[in-house]
Amino acid sequence: MQRSLRMTGALDPRGAWSADRCTIARALEVVGTRSAFLLLREAFYGTARFDDFVRRAQLSPPVTSERLAALVDAGLLEREGYREPGQRARRQYRLTEKGAELFPALAALMRWGDRWLDEDGGPVALRHRGCGERVGVELRCAAGHRVQPGEIDLARNPDAPARRDRASAT
Amino acid sequence: MQRSLRMTGALDPRGAWSADRCTIARALEVVGTRSAFLLLREAFYGTARFDDFVRRAQLSPPVTSERLAALVDAGLLEREGYREPGQRARRQYRLTEKGAELFPALAALMRWGDRWLDEDGGPVALRHRGCGERVGVELRCAAGHRVQPGEIDLARNPDAPARRDRASAT
Repeated sequence: MQRSLRMTGALDPRGAWSADRCTIARALEVVGTRSAFLLLREAFYGTARFDDFVRRAQLSPPVTSERLAALVDAGLLEREGYREPGQRARRQYRLTEKGAELFPALAALMRWGDRWLDEDGGPVALRHRGCGERVGVELRCAAGHRVQPGEIDLARNPDAPARRDRASAT
Repeated sequence: MQRSLRMTGALDPRGAWSADRCTIARALEVVGTRSAFLLLREAFYGTARFDDFVRRAQLSPPVTSERLAALVDAGLLEREGYREPGQRARRQYRLTEKGAELFPALAALMRWGDRWLDEDGGPVALRHRGCGERVGVELRCAAGHRVQPGEIDLARNPDAPARRDRASAT
């Protein structure tokens, strides 16, 4: 089975270009730690308060504080103030649109772990509220076809300017 | 807009269970470093030889060696021997089925980075060889409906046994 992508155009052969603009690498500069992913998971699970992030993500308060601040700085979470009767003002966190759009990446990791790392298919299931069926992550092209990795060509994005003498395509 | 999931059944409220079997966390124990993701990216781009992984992922030889060994131990890559005429035997790496099935997670990170971190929509594009259209990652339920995160219920997987006194559902 063909498991790798096929390089096309200026990207063939792979040895002729460097991946220094790769958006996978840049995404991982934002969320490339286990603790960042776990805090985002909790945000998707509805967690909003600092103490709840600490307990539910099972991280130390200093790590939680540092990571939440980094996720706010990166624009994935936003802080908002709230005050309960008789209490001092506090802050809570919620997902921005930018943060919310990372959900497919987390769901893909969950589904992979469900299949390969858990004998029971995972402890929890994502279900479509409308019909009750289990939710998964699929590769689809803009024409709606389901796509396997072996059917994918990697091509230079024609909207992206070349930035170097050699083909520094990604 | 509703950006978090809705907890149902034994998972409501979130404060009543702990996520100690979470398959996102377990997946991140396998691939939760930037260097592991970059080496997997290169494997999807067809890289097979140690020296090429070092150069193309822009990692040091010791880090590359350690991470490749960990990915082999975790069953995501496999080693195979090869010998070029007049050279000593060498080893190269290729994706297993388990490794190949992580592609949607990498593609989701790439598409998110294309949208949010790159002014030109990303340096490279994934295209469906059959029709030429750009490939993305979609949440779909088993009935084929496209699903948004706000339309997802998180429920205990009925095939997964409860393992604690309290609802340690994930």
